[in-house]
Amino acid sequence: MTATATGLPFDDIRRLIAAMPGPDLQAAAAVRARDENLTKPQGSLGRLEELAEWMAAWQGKSMPSVDRPLVCVFAANHGVARHRVSKYPQEVTRQMLENFAAGGAAINQICAAFDFGFKVFDLALDLPTGDITREPALDERACVATMAFGMEAISGGADLLCVGEMGIGNTTVAAAIYAGLFGGSAQHWVGRGTGVDDDGLARKIGAVELALAVHERYLTDPLEVLRRLGGREIAAAAGAILAARLQRIPVVIDGYVVTAAAAILYKLDPHALDHCVAGHISAEGVHAEVLERIGLKPVLDLGMRLGEGTGAALAASLIKAAVACHRGMATFDQAQVARAD
Amino acid sequence: MTATATGLPFDDIRRLIAAMPGPDLQAAAAVRARDENLTKPQGSLGRLEELAEWMAAWQGKSMPSVDRPLVCVFAANHGVARHRVSKYPQEVTRQMLENFAAGGAAINQICAAFDFGFKVFDLALDLPTGDITREPALDERACVATMAFGMEAISGGADLLCVGEMGIGNTTVAAAIYAGLFGGSAQHWVGRGTGVDDDGLARKIGAVELALAVHERYLTDPLEVLRRLGGREIAAAAGAILAARLQRIPVVIDGYVVTAAAAILYKLDPHALDHCVAGHISAEGVHAEVLERIGLKPVLDLGMRLGEGTGAALAASLIKAAVACHRGMATFDQAQVARAD
Repeated sequence: MTATATGLPFDDIRRLIAAMPGPDLQAAAAVRARDENLTKPQGSLGRLEELAEWMAAWQGKSMPSVDRPLVCVFAANHGVARHRVSKYPQEVTRQMLENFAAGGAAINQICAAFDFGFKVFDLALDLPTGDITREPALDERACVATMAFGMEAISGGADLLCVGEMGIGNTTVAAAIYAGLFGGSAQHWVGRGTGVDDDGLARKIGAVELALAVHERYLTDPLEVLRRLGGREIAAAAGAILAARLQRIPVVIDGYVVTAAAAILYKLDPHALDHCVAGHISAEGVHAEVLERIGLKPVLDLGMRLGEGTGAALAASLIKAAVACHRGMATFDQAQVARAD
Repeated sequence: MTATATGLPFDDIRRLIAAMPGPDLQAAAAVRARDENLTKPQGSLGRLEELAEWMAAWQGKSMPSVDRPLVCVFAANHGVARHRVSKYPQEVTRQMLENFAAGGAAINQICAAFDFGFKVFDLALDLPTGDITREPALDERACVATMAFGMEAISGGADLLCVGEMGIGNTTVAAAIYAGLFGGSAQHWVGRGTGVDDDGLARKIGAVELALAVHERYLTDPLEVLRRLGGREIAAAAGAILAARLQRIPVVIDGYVVTAAAAILYKLDPHALDHCVAGHISAEGVHAEVLERIGLKPVLDLGMRLGEGTGAALAASLIKAAVACHRGMATFDQAQVARAD
């Protein structure tokens, strides 16, 4: 699939944000009430109980379901890659897309293991974004068009969406977004990504410093941060997260890069991520700090830093189990199990 | 299934401990070598890479597999339950076994979600162990017979074993074992289990204090700790963990109670748990401290405290994914993906 331009300006994105539905409090209350009657000590499934309630609140169903989980990977290339901010050459983005198509990547194995749907979006790989050290990554029209394309992720239906990404150079872009949104030095936000050495790390920090200086006066608007410092996969991920909210599909955010897309939405509206959980804490630098700033509690902490939606998909398998427990467990009455004294 | 006595004394257990195989270092090295060629930045799958290597080392296969994962739940009743150390009456152990058989418990849903094998062992439920506040839980013959019965858990074959338990009163027993093995006060080791109130907590602490005083001079031998302060499900779990080692089946330990069985083996030989991982950190009191003492690093931390093997089974789903990634991912050469610069 290829991104096509639409006429949507940023104001239309703001209108969608304003139109976001809230949680279904009745569905959440129904889950809590049923949970008290299930054959286990109250609270003993811990986070699984919270996840079942959260799924109900955002699906708007008192019996949440995970029948059509979907992993979407957004892939793009970045002008800033010319500054050798990654250990890998830019061609690897395209090569990894071919690897996804052939079933050879980590995310393919995880989706196969758990029977999850899987889609990859090629976001104009042959057109890297502008080099953020001297120009905006995208113009407004292209940014919004890419967000709209990301919204298509769920057009075939899904009841749980995992958002992942692939793009050589995109941890540099994500660091620039964090600095743009939260302030602080480039050095604070930049990590080693795929594993750059000290020189590579210095180049990443230098690139983010330059980008922040060039775009400084426009960074009060989160959507300007997205188009100036971002990339197509991050814009598309933001669109997908927003579309999922409008369609009542709970979302599992992946790691350091996808969280940058989530952070843009959070800065537009602090409730914009209420339908999201963080799949995991990435091993990439400051991810844990970002999650705390945007109010997302991670499900897993496994020292992963691959992207591709791998952390989100693993967490989704636990959400599936949480929902299975809630739906399938017998009540004390049904099982004729005695309650607590 | 019902436990039957055999003639094995503790010395035979010690002989099995002495006969435990070590890791297959060649298989582990093969996993590390292959891992370096898989299409991802090195180390980017974090704990998943460690788990794949660990599986290979203990299965003794350079290509580890999770084709026959098995969850075993050992269930037993405890004389100490008469001191009202649980929120639930003792009949609940039997009722929950019926719930397992009918497919209504949490562990049933998790096993169904991940297509795991599931077995429940009824360890003479109608014969609660001796009341540890005034007598040994088991005599040596019964203790060893129960361990031998636990060894049968894997008689049908498995390539990954999750060990779980069910038994009203058994968090009191586990606390007594921890105090017996590691020293320290009853108060330090006792938690709220299924959720006892302050009076219940005081009764639990009192029971453990009494038990420690009664059995004090025998507690230098871990197997004496097991038979005097333990229970049938804990003895059977210890047997299953040991048998799995002898059969080269990696083991996922569940929570606070199963870890007491593991701790007995650890005290017999600090390498006895090298083929084990801890599925999760239980929300029950000092579980994290115990795991640190016996050198097990938990996979999950989800605030769970249900038992039944639920934490172990959830972690096993991630181990299955880790092995699937290792087995199924393409190498850089296969996928024609460029390596790092």
